[in-house]
Amino acid sequence: MILEIVTTYIKPGQEDAFEEAFKNASHYIAESSGYIGHELRRCIEVKGKYVNMIRWQTVEDHMVGFRGSERFQHFREELSPFYEKPSDMNHYEIVMQNPA
Amino acid sequence: MILEIVTTYIKPGQEDAFEEAFKNASHYIAESSGYIGHELRRCIEVKGKYVNMIRWQTVEDHMVGFRGSERFQHFREELSPFYEKPSDMNHYEIVMQNPA
Repeated sequence: MILEIVTTYIKPGQEDAFEEAFKNASHYIAESSGYIGHELRRCIEVKGKYVNMIRWQTVEDHMVGFRGSERFQHFREELSPFYEKPSDMNHYEIVMQNPA
Repeated sequence: MILEIVTTYIKPGQEDAFEEAFKNASHYIAESSGYIGHELRRCIEVKGKYVNMIRWQTVEDHMVGFRGSERFQHFREELSPFYEKPSDMNHYEIVMQNPA
């Protein structure tokens, strides 16, 4: 399992609308091959900062399967109006976890 | 549940030693009141970049209970020699997750 972490920064005052739009657009991710699950989390210290953490079977399921799909175009169209600046995105593999 | 995400950058060539030291020092976190679980993940695209994601009952369990403890001092002493630059740290609360 690969974890994609996207950090996004939302325009001031647009936070509630972004959260609602994200929920409505989540099916575009969830319908992808290799999708396992995802969660959106709101930063407590920095208003407008969020992390979207998506679990994929492989990096290719995200970068080729999802990014190359029309679903990604729809997802981006519906959410990019809320972005204050470009998002950061990386993929992560496990080193250790506890409990195992 | 609150998720603490710490992004760290390790000195070139020190990655394996850091991973081993992190595993050995993890008990300092896990023995804390309010600790639920944690995982260390290695960035696939950026060598030396890691995320440590720690689940706590509350922000205070981390910021007061752990950060105010001797265990935190030991944890920092054992891992800070590996850090290339200061880490980023924030706490996140859930907005939505799928599967629920």
